Amino acid sequence: MAPSFALDGGSDANRAPPPPSVTGRFASVYSEVQNSRIFHTLPLPSVLKTPFTIIDGPPSSAAGNPDEIAKLFPNLFGQSSAMLVPGGSETVQLNQKLKIGVVLSGGQAPGGHNVISGIFDYLQDRAKGSTLYGFRGGPAGIMKCKYVELTSDYIYPYRNQGGFDMIRSGRDKIETPEQFKQAEETVHKLELDGLVVIGGDDSNTNACLLAEYFRSKNVKTHVIGCPKTIDGDLKCKEVPTSFGFDTACKIYAEMIGNVMIDARSTGKYYHFVRLMGRAASHITLECALQTHPNITIIGEEVAAKKLTLKNVTDYMVDIISKRAEDNYNYGVILIPEGLIDFIPEIQHLISELNEILAHETVDEGGLWKMKLTDQSLKLFEFLPRSIQEQLMLERDPHGNVQVAKIETEKMFIQMVETELEKRKQEGTYKGGFKGQSHFFGYEGRCGLPTNFDSTYCYALGYGAGALLQSGKTGLISSVGNLCAPVEEWTVGGTALTSLMDVERRHGKFKPVIKKAMVELEEAPFKKFASLRDEWALKNCYISPGPIQFTGPGSDAISHTLLLELGAQA
Amino acid sequence: MAPSFALDGGSDANRAPPPPSVTGRFASVYSEVQNSRIFHTLPLPSVLKTPFTIIDGPPSSAAGNPDEIAKLFPNLFGQSSAMLVPGGSETVQLNQKLKIGVVLSGGQAPGGHNVISGIFDYLQDRAKGSTLYGFRGGPAGIMKCKYVELTSDYIYPYRNQGGFDMIRSGRDKIETPEQFKQAEETVHKLELDGLVVIGGDDSNTNACLLAEYFRSKNVKTHVIGCPKTIDGDLKCKEVPTSFGFDTACKIYAEMIGNVMIDARSTGKYYHFVRLMGRAASHITLECALQTHPNITIIGEEVAAKKLTLKNVTDYMVDIISKRAEDNYNYGVILIPEGLIDFIPEIQHLISELNEILAHETVDEGGLWKMKLTDQSLKLFEFLPRSIQEQLMLERDPHGNVQVAKIETEKMFIQMVETELEKRKQEGTYKGGFKGQSHFFGYEGRCGLPTNFDSTYCYALGYGAGALLQSGKTGLISSVGNLCAPVEEWTVGGTALTSLMDVERRHGKFKPVIKKAMVELEEAPFKKFASLRDEWALKNCYISPGPIQFTGPGSDAISHTLLLELGAQA
Repeated sequence: MAPSFALDGGSDANRAPPPPSVTGRFASVYSEVQNSRIFHTLPLPSVLKTPFTIIDGPPSSAAGNPDEIAKLFPNLFGQSSAMLVPGGSETVQLNQKLKIGVVLSGGQAPGGHNVISGIFDYLQDRAKGSTLYGFRGGPAGIMKCKYVELTSDYIYPYRNQGGFDMIRSGRDKIETPEQFKQAEETVHKLELDGLVVIGGDDSNTNACLLAEYFRSKNVKTHVIGCPKTIDGDLKCKEVPTSFGFDTACKIYAEMIGNVMIDARSTGKYYHFVRLMGRAASHITLECALQTHPNITIIGEEVAAKKLTLKNVTDYMVDIISKRAEDNYNYGVILIPEGLIDFIPEIQHLISELNEILAHETVDEGGLWKMKLTDQSLKLFEFLPRSIQEQLMLERDPHGNVQVAKIETEKMFIQMVETELEKRKQEGTYKGGFKGQSHFFGYEGRCGLPTNFDSTYCYALGYGAGALLQSGKTGLISSVGNLCAPVEEWTVGGTALTSLMDVERRHGKFKPVIKKAMVELEEAPFKKFASLRDEWALKNCYISPGPIQFTGPGSDAISHTLLLELGAQA
Repeated sequence: MAPSFALDGGSDANRAPPPPSVTGRFASVYSEVQNSRIFHTLPLPSVLKTPFTIIDGPPSSAAGNPDEIAKLFPNLFGQSSAMLVPGGSETVQLNQKLKIGVVLSGGQAPGGHNVISGIFDYLQDRAKGSTLYGFRGGPAGIMKCKYVELTSDYIYPYRNQGGFDMIRSGRDKIETPEQFKQAEETVHKLELDGLVVIGGDDSNTNACLLAEYFRSKNVKTHVIGCPKTIDGDLKCKEVPTSFGFDTACKIYAEMIGNVMIDARSTGKYYHFVRLMGRAASHITLECALQTHPNITIIGEEVAAKKLTLKNVTDYMVDIISKRAEDNYNYGVILIPEGLIDFIPEIQHLISELNEILAHETVDEGGLWKMKLTDQSLKLFEFLPRSIQEQLMLERDPHGNVQVAKIETEKMFIQMVETELEKRKQEGTYKGGFKGQSHFFGYEGRCGLPTNFDSTYCYALGYGAGALLQSGKTGLISSVGNLCAPVEEWTVGGTALTSLMDVERRHGKFKPVIKKAMVELEEAPFKKFASLRDEWALKNCYISPGPIQFTGPGSDAISHTLLLELGAQA
């Protein structure tokens, strides 16, 4: 019955013996659930349980502008994808000792620790006597050669645990010639055979530039990327999902499901929930598919249909009014964090304000507003006073509006309230409206990874080890067939250059891995679009409940993945 | 692997067959976890599994002013506690048909549905042919005679589910003579033998007044209360905890644990977490004991030590400064929702502002501030501008400051920032500070009840049925010995009058069940106080993880309960 107890080792830990010494995370006590997760044994895809051969696919191209990508990556462009298959003659030489480095880059995502333990266990199993270094604090750790040797004891307490605290992450980038030189010095000093970069789109682009650089300089270090981001916007055919998305969405969906039941029980609140996800609306879409809210705004649809803020508000107000006719004066509304970036009129208003505030005095009487274009003035007057003030006053040191600080959920509550008040006076709305705002963000980035993320990450790491031992570079670790039982998952690597396009910045072409946005023609959005009218007026709420690690629901995978892979099949 | 599926019955449901028809909640689909919970079989204390006798204890008194309570409850004052014991000669007559009503009163708490299914199953098991009515929408349902007959099929999909949506709740009170008369008419019309009131301190006071009224009028209806509130402030020796507290705290602790790992992983944020709980700080204390945050503010301690807002801010700033010396520029801070009410100087300021704003014009130059007392002026100047504005502008229709709307967590972030800036200029602080605010509230009220709350509520309801069949009235259902295995839990009832004191309102004595506040001399606070200095400077974070329904951690009970019962033992 004890709610928590100290870490005291155990017998069936994942390959690692109990720690002999008490340092780092060991010093802390673990909750019963954290502790039990350490001992959770992870299944491996069967191809990783036997000797394997690497089969190369056909030459690859790029996601766009292949000629420019070819110029930027003369040594790597066109690389084949690699796929592991059991047995065969080209079986990778076992017991070749390797020195490998690993780095976490960017924001946290549940499962990062398991990628690292996957690499470690691969080396233990297939390349005895190898060394794994963890660079501390993200790419800066590579540049400054700050690292720690990752041993069995060191990794042990982080198995299946959330967070990135084993070696921490960072947002620095290796960009300038000096920085590339620093990285080269580090890998030279540590005699690295390989480096695994765990990160999002930018970090994987960086990983590929590093792979190209090392190859061009005849440095022996190979570089493999791993797809990480809770936002779910780093994916392609060979990389069906980024890790962390599954756990984060389930954590948010638990909370959304709870406020849905709350809404239905009290019958008097509209809960406006803003969800993390700066660029793409995948998280919002997945949470909607899991919980069936009354209203869900998808940024990509707003952009595609060129909707204005007034359009979006009217859409909400129309549904709220209709629900009031059925005596439903409650509901749940999901809003993606990045919504404002999808509405061009807001961007226009902000740039006009920037211009005016830089050159004019803002008079009390409001004459300054005459400088705004008609469209921007109309929008400005439509905004709640608190948002107007935020746009006028709260500037960063460069004088820019802090768009990310705008609490969109509160903004909509006020705008909806104002519109409903109008309709009330016109006699077209007779309901009662009370808004409650929520932002679900940080609580989703560091949760204990789900069974799916734990297993997926472990396979990504284990596979990355295999790719490095096979002499691959410039690939992203790719684990596929994810809707099948784990044994049948495929393992391989995809040429990072094949995910790239170029963007022109400061007159130069820069390689970028394009963010995978919500596609309005693909299965997840289409399913949502086909059901949302029913969800709007009826109450089809589903409460997913807390993430389970054993028993019913514990092996569920995301709707997005199920639908995307189902549509491909 | 399917993440959710429709309700399709099952074989081992808790006494209830699968529903034959599709109505109400059935119309919706359930998540896999929700669905599995329906089939979760609940253990009963062994005394409820056999024939039992009711043993009466000695006559009771009151929590305070027994003479006044005796006058207010001439028919009920002094009632004994009742305890169920197995077997014996006075075994309750089985198969006596009863008509019972049940009502949910006040805010939601996880487990309410299980109290109802406990009553229902008691009647099925021990009083075949009985009828259970659920009053809709809280006490208003009694007054307006709005009810539904609760059948096996009706109750079935709500078993072990969160929310109060089976019959909904409400915040009305039965207060005036007319309202008592209405209640009398309803129980007369339905020929009720008993009424179970599931609610907090106010609702249980109301239940007792109703019991007294019915007895005085020779109405046959008996009234039994049940202790409900996530705030955990309705408890006494015989009622060790109110239901919902366990689940709500675990949901909040999951989120707190996640942001702790996030804080440690990024190393750059202070998360300020405000936690629901309007009056007492039990939730904040329990969450602290579960997670070990760096700073925890307990309202009752602030009040006892007569701390000012500046004192509390300095406490935070001191710890943040010390942590910066160890290069820890991150942390987690818990703040109870009701904190402001514990700080007398804020109450003084607000009442002075109310006075001034009612009679004076507020001039731009700030001359109006001269009307404030020195202490209030000092406090006002100390407050961040946004809070000053909130105090000046955001008034309810009666012109009062909306204290509950003050986002205390944001207020502290700003005040801490200002103080740290000062120290930076004085050279006594060299760290970096970024605050992130959170409010964890609504997401905790309607979660799926934990195994503890599910079982506890079921026993409370089952026991309430037993008390009614035994002819008891004016008692609150009491289930004790909660740290022992469920079989050994005790079941009985405690005289509601024994929990009461009087308050003088509008010149009259009103009976009240005093809220159980955090006691600074009791075990939970003392344990916290003995550890908090270590938690402040070291990082002893514990991440409880999501609530589990099976496996490790699934049967854990709250630290508060463990410590309180441990201290009593």
